[in-house]
Amino acid sequence: MIENSTNISEKVGMSPGSLIHIGDIHDQDQHITIIDYTKNSGEVMDVESIDDILKFKDKNSVTWVNVEGLKNIEIIESIGQAFNIHPLVLEDILNTHQRAKFEDYDDYQYIVLKGLFLENKNSTVIYEQISILLLNNFVFTFKEKKDNLFEPIEKRIQNSKNRIRGLGPDYLTYAILDSIIDQNFALLESLDEIIDSIEEELLLNPGADTLKRIQNIKRELIYIRRSVSPLRELLNSILRVESPLIEEKTQIYFRDVYDHVLRISETIELQRDMVYGLMDMYQTSISNKMNEVMKVLTVFASIFIPLTFIAGVYGMNFEYMPELQWRLAYPILWVIFIVVGVGLLIYFRRKKWL
Amino acid sequence: MIENSTNISEKVGMSPGSLIHIGDIHDQDQHITIIDYTKNSGEVMDVESIDDILKFKDKNSVTWVNVEGLKNIEIIESIGQAFNIHPLVLEDILNTHQRAKFEDYDDYQYIVLKGLFLENKNSTVIYEQISILLLNNFVFTFKEKKDNLFEPIEKRIQNSKNRIRGLGPDYLTYAILDSIIDQNFALLESLDEIIDSIEEELLLNPGADTLKRIQNIKRELIYIRRSVSPLRELLNSILRVESPLIEEKTQIYFRDVYDHVLRISETIELQRDMVYGLMDMYQTSISNKMNEVMKVLTVFASIFIPLTFIAGVYGMNFEYMPELQWRLAYPILWVIFIVVGVGLLIYFRRKKWL
Amino acid sequence: MIENSTNISEKVGMSPGSLIHIGDIHDQDQHITIIDYTKNSGEVMDVESIDDILKFKDKNSVTWVNVEGLKNIEIIESIGQAFNIHPLVLEDILNTHQRAKFEDYDDYQYIVLKGLFLENKNSTVIYEQISILLLNNFVFTFKEKKDNLFEPIEKRIQNSKNRIRGLGPDYLTYAILDSIIDQNFALLESLDEIIDSIEEELLLNPGADTLKRIQNIKRELIYIRRSVSPLRELLNSILRVESPLIEEKTQIYFRDVYDHVLRISETIELQRDMVYGLMDMYQTSISNKMNEVMKVLTVFASIFIPLTFIAGVYGMNFEYMPELQWRLAYPILWVIFIVVGVGLLIYFRRKKWL
Amino acid sequence: MIENSTNISEKVGMSPGSLIHIGDIHDQDQHITIIDYTKNSGEVMDVESIDDILKFKDKNSVTWVNVEGLKNIEIIESIGQAFNIHPLVLEDILNTHQRAKFEDYDDYQYIVLKGLFLENKNSTVIYEQISILLLNNFVFTFKEKKDNLFEPIEKRIQNSKNRIRGLGPDYLTYAILDSIIDQNFALLESLDEIIDSIEEELLLNPGADTLKRIQNIKRELIYIRRSVSPLRELLNSILRVESPLIEEKTQIYFRDVYDHVLRISETIELQRDMVYGLMDMYQTSISNKMNEVMKVLTVFASIFIPLTFIAGVYGMNFEYMPELQWRLAYPILWVIFIVVGVGLLIYFRRKKWL
Amino acid sequence: MIENSTNISEKVGMSPGSLIHIGDIHDQDQHITIIDYTKNSGEVMDVESIDDILKFKDKNSVTWVNVEGLKNIEIIESIGQAFNIHPLVLEDILNTHQRAKFEDYDDYQYIVLKGLFLENKNSTVIYEQISILLLNNFVFTFKEKKDNLFEPIEKRIQNSKNRIRGLGPDYLTYAILDSIIDQNFALLESLDEIIDSIEEELLLNPGADTLKRIQNIKRELIYIRRSVSPLRELLNSILRVESPLIEEKTQIYFRDVYDHVLRISETIELQRDMVYGLMDMYQTSISNKMNEVMKVLTVFASIFIPLTFIAGVYGMNFEYMPELQWRLAYPILWVIFIVVGVGLLIYFRRKKWL
Repeated sequence: MIENSTNISEKVGMSPGSLIHIGDIHDQDQHITIIDYTKNSGEVMDVESIDDILKFKDKNSVTWVNVEGLKNIEIIESIGQAFNIHPLVLEDILNTHQRAKFEDYDDYQYIVLKGLFLENKNSTVIYEQISILLLNNFVFTFKEKKDNLFEPIEKRIQNSKNRIRGLGPDYLTYAILDSIIDQNFALLESLDEIIDSIEEELLLNPGADTLKRIQNIKRELIYIRRSVSPLRELLNSILRVESPLIEEKTQIYFRDVYDHVLRISETIELQRDMVYGLMDMYQTSISNKMNEVMKVLTVFASIFIPLTFIAGVYGMNFEYMPELQWRLAYPILWVIFIVVGVGLLIYFRRKKWL
Repeated sequence: MIENSTNISEKVGMSPGSLIHIGDIHDQDQHITIIDYTKNSGEVMDVESIDDILKFKDKNSVTWVNVEGLKNIEIIESIGQAFNIHPLVLEDILNTHQRAKFEDYDDYQYIVLKGLFLENKNSTVIYEQISILLLNNFVFTFKEKKDNLFEPIEKRIQNSKNRIRGLGPDYLTYAILDSIIDQNFALLESLDEIIDSIEEELLLNPGADTLKRIQNIKRELIYIRRSVSPLRELLNSILRVESPLIEEKTQIYFRDVYDHVLRISETIELQRDMVYGLMDMYQTSISNKMNEVMKVLTVFASIFIPLTFIAGVYGMNFEYMPELQWRLAYPILWVIFIVVGVGLLIYFRRKKWL
Repeated sequence: MIENSTNISEKVGMSPGSLIHIGDIHDQDQHITIIDYTKNSGEVMDVESIDDILKFKDKNSVTWVNVEGLKNIEIIESIGQAFNIHPLVLEDILNTHQRAKFEDYDDYQYIVLKGLFLENKNSTVIYEQISILLLNNFVFTFKEKKDNLFEPIEKRIQNSKNRIRGLGPDYLTYAILDSIIDQNFALLESLDEIIDSIEEELLLNPGADTLKRIQNIKRELIYIRRSVSPLRELLNSILRVESPLIEEKTQIYFRDVYDHVLRISETIELQRDMVYGLMDMYQTSISNKMNEVMKVLTVFASIFIPLTFIAGVYGMNFEYMPELQWRLAYPILWVIFIVVGVGLLIYFRRKKWL
Repeated sequence: MIENSTNISEKVGMSPGSLIHIGDIHDQDQHITIIDYTKNSGEVMDVESIDDILKFKDKNSVTWVNVEGLKNIEIIESIGQAFNIHPLVLEDILNTHQRAKFEDYDDYQYIVLKGLFLENKNSTVIYEQISILLLNNFVFTFKEKKDNLFEPIEKRIQNSKNRIRGLGPDYLTYAILDSIIDQNFALLESLDEIIDSIEEELLLNPGADTLKRIQNIKRELIYIRRSVSPLRELLNSILRVESPLIEEKTQIYFRDVYDHVLRISETIELQRDMVYGLMDMYQTSISNKMNEVMKVLTVFASIFIPLTFIAGVYGMNFEYMPELQWRLAYPILWVIFIVVGVGLLIYFRRKKWL
Repeated sequence: MIENSTNISEKVGMSPGSLIHIGDIHDQDQHITIIDYTKNSGEVMDVESIDDILKFKDKNSVTWVNVEGLKNIEIIESIGQAFNIHPLVLEDILNTHQRAKFEDYDDYQYIVLKGLFLENKNSTVIYEQISILLLNNFVFTFKEKKDNLFEPIEKRIQNSKNRIRGLGPDYLTYAILDSIIDQNFALLESLDEIIDSIEEELLLNPGADTLKRIQNIKRELIYIRRSVSPLRELLNSILRVESPLIEEKTQIYFRDVYDHVLRISETIELQRDMVYGLMDMYQTSISNKMNEVMKVLTVFASIFIPLTFIAGVYGMNFEYMPELQWRLAYPILWVIFIVVGVGLLIYFRRKKWL
């Protein structure tokens, strides 16, 4: 459920650039789709081998190769050789514990980040590493598994009226990045709902389970924050880079993504603040409950302990206890019992303990 | 009541620049006012169509178009086309979950921020997104709903003696920005009052309700802070921008707004500190109350439990208990009861438990 | 007693530069003093009208105009016109909720800051806004009320041997700023004493009153900090400004004031740390007290409840209870009472509860 | 077990550059290995004296001298003289309390950092200071003790097909640095496991021992953080340095190490957050337990104290107590006992105390 | 014992540069030592008057004048005049509440910092302000009192073989600064020991005294931190300064001191973290103790209160209580007592309360 951040250690001591898939292996077949488009055409096809990709190398169109599943290392290696990608980049694509980053190599640019998805069944967060390679006429995306994340973009490309068709691979890169990052909004919305429901629970009927729920959401926020926080730097780097691969008029779109990232970061900070507030409220509610328990004990004990003492006194067996012979002693004592008891009740009510 | 920050997710995957109104829809008719003025004239009129606006395009006067209500998307779209506004800007105007920001496009400048208003009826904070477009001779403002926020500025424009008449659209932009930001002072004042009243309540008679009040103001401050914190950067950008649209002599006025923003930010931080202090006080007051309860219980129990034991001893039915026959045993025992009881009372009073 | 930071809201929507006195109105007459000096002369005189000030405009001496009390707005307005001061500056002088700042207008420089004074009677902090205008041969100071803050400087000017006489208005500005800022040292000293006395109280005999004292000093520190924190930036701006109004050899004196500000800021942070420590100590002392109360209760109850049970057993009225007829039963029972009681006492002493 | 950070004090007042081994002396013999390689050859040999090292000085190969154990100061001194190393560097090599740093001397570069290893036996962290000297054709490494940390690199050098052979001493330096820093991943993985196991313990059965475990991991994290935090700066310095000793194409590898360091730092921060969360959970679990204890006490006492009072009443010895003669009094009383007891039980169950 | 930071207030309003000794007056005679050396000679002598110092002014040797005790203001004033020192510097030398700082005057450089010493008798920290003036061929040091801090440096100068002899006054300044700053290591070591001993105390037997010890070390750390934190900036300034007074080859030594300062700062932060951890542990230990107390009370009360009730029932005096006549009633009741008691004991043991 939660990204296990550290089993990279198995690779310690290996030569850098050794291609091994590190991370949870999503046991899925690899699936490669090519989306090729120009201003006037747009086609989507599934391919199987590197040769199918190389066919597009000399075409003037924008070619987007979407690789889903990282099991088949050879095909990634051959892409690397055919397009002259640095071994460290290939290593990063396969090792799914990357920190989000942007790297500008002269011939291509490498973006890696985490996609965060909410699995509906049991509302856990799924982390998927997505790598984007932006070349002159090519865009490669590498995903851990097959899903329909990029479907809306494919649809837009197939739609002949859509603006995306007339624009270059840099705009496509923007569209991909934007669709990954905007997934976070849905995630944060659902966290908002969870926080609200916990708060309500705290005000009505906090239980041991509530603590666990607070703890879970706190943990989830820590992980989400870790995967979101480097995005700011990533987009800053894209906005500052001077490269022929990204046209100036596309920069404005990346600036828009940057604004989204800022808003996501701020919302996460805000939710952290709120979750800390929940923890405070929980602890306060425990103290309040304890107070209530103590008051009940104190009221019961303080009323009956003195009365029991009085009853005890007249249970003594002394020969010379004049009251014992008095006719009215017993009813008088009941009056005393009631006066003392009611008096203490009034006293505690005055103290607002009842 | 509180801005729901995340339902933008409905738009995920859409083409950027798609114009849809995102946010709580204030079910209000759209209302467009034009305020047109030169040094010598100043008129205010209501208009209905884009053509009414275009008439002013070639006039040499300063024209302020105030659009209240975002329901009618077409008119905003046609303004965008007529004045050559970037689609992303139009999208931002309609999506009312923007972070406050300033963007410098060459022909125009775009400012978006939240106005914070205090609704008097139940003292909740209302957030309204306000967009400002500063063009060469035009200023556009887009508000979520109709209110009298800009009335004082309109009055000043209609007053022939006011300085604003002789100055350009940059000064008008300043006046608008200033009037929006200064709303925060009233808001913070009322928060100050609430904090003071909670503090008083805490010293006199804290209850379960107090916690809820603290929690509410804490939450409100978190939201206010989020909408105020980007204002600093916004004004910094305005002060640093080099554009013919903002004259140097107007910069000094924006510097003044910047000072206001600093003061607002500082006041919010100060109020946060105080609210955290309230939470501490509340928790301390619970502990103090528990202490008081425990002392009452301890005093009652510690005094009467030993006495009850003594009474119990002389309630035993042994045949050979010489004290039982003693004439003075009973009165002597009462003396013992009183001595022990009073002794313990004095002991607890010495400990300052009474 | 404490600066009410927000009633500026009354001015929302007004034209900038509208001269209204905002802030607590110290109901005092306005009092204007002129101190005029050259290397060889130095005179102090009280004046009433703007004309008295204008007489000095063409003299080659350094003229210091000290305006105490802000009731008479016209005289400030006429100073503004005579010396060509920007309306926003005049507005800032009159609105006594300014953040400390330094503004460099070409012909003059504007400094505004808060003076903090300790009122001896009931040890509350008084905030007074002081504005300084440094012109070519003039220095203006505007204070909220009349006091003897500047008396030592006046004395030094009247003393023919003092260095200040031979130096320009920039050095005078330094002297004024220095004397205002150094007031803070006395204030912090007295806070130090209060913190020490609270700490002692906490170790000896903490009470409900202690919490209130801690809360008060915490609040006071929050306010002091707010008024001191912008001073750093203020002095940084003075040190970086390149203006003929401040000679290079005077900069070294402002650097000295800067060091004082750093020390004041550090002392405030240190005192904040200490006050938070006091709060911790207070909460710990409550828990310790509760522990003590609980131990007393536990010891009493745990000793006498078993004894009472034993006594109760032999108070039962069964016909066949052989012990009841034994001659030594009663004394033996007393031995048991004592053994059990003393045994439990020893047990609790071993646990260090007694 | 934990690095004792401060016994450097013994050296206070000594002349700088005095060569004394400061730190825990690992009582081990010194062990020097030379790994010498070119594109076509690669040999590993053990040497004993400085002369054996000097033989390689004029060869064109890359020579890596790995010194394990710092007992023999003379050999380090003679390396220093032979290769013209600054006395302060030699001092730093021998004083094993260095902060990780990179220093660029013109002829050579000095890197010092801590290696963190997990000793499997009792899962404690071992800190070892490792110094790296990068010269024109030489790389020196100085370790505190002999282990197999560098074995994989030696193997790669001996393997004629490995890329490392064809590259210079800067790449070797990268490989060494990378293998040291990647050790941290294994360490953090094991901390992750410990944190998880503590969390589980907290939810199931927290004990006094849990606090100690939390305290220990908190302390360990504080120390690890201290030794990791300067690595960021170290790698930044390497990436910024302009020196013929580090070729541009090697920089990309150091950038990769930099990314690892960022990830390690972030993981440590994340674990700190979690450990603080554990502390919170522990304190909450104590409060919850106390609540449970109090409830049991309150239920027992509140049920039986009133019943005992009633029993006490009819244990009184008054002559005129009519109920005593009633035939059904005793069974009726039992009914009362049961009704009161069960009624209170229902009451407490309603309050969810049972 | 602890530096009283604020009695500078006595000087408020005085002319800057007025020479008054502010601070705790160490009632000691002033003691002036001259250490004069060249590559080939080195002599130490005590002097009494300013004339003795001036003799060395034209010599080509390095002259170090060490002034211990600040009582005799005239001699400091005459040094100021003879060597043309700015009055503000002289003021800073005498006012022993300075923040550590470095000031570059063209002809000389001024360093002021606090020396921290541990007084062995009662392990309190002594703060001593030390000023260093670096002139062309002169170094002045001003200390508050006489001690043997500089003895090792004097010894090194007298030793003809030591490197220090051949180097200039900048190296001497380094040696002095280094010896002052390295004192901190001893201090931090002893704090480490105190923290360890408190932690042990907390695990074994925390008492009210422990809180006081934690509070004390917290306070001490706050003060130490305040005096250490500006050292970073101080050394940064030295490293950045471009002055003929500090040769480039000496810079490397100051860089070494800078590393020491970083390590000291980090150790202080680490110790702060630990002390906060101690506070947490203390509060947790109080809660744990309370839990233990409550369990004892609950176990005693819950076992004996029901038993006492049963005994009370058979102490009632009803005429018709059939059990009272049963022969085996009494022994059966004892069986019931034991079964109920042991049953509750087992119940509480299961709950791990025993």
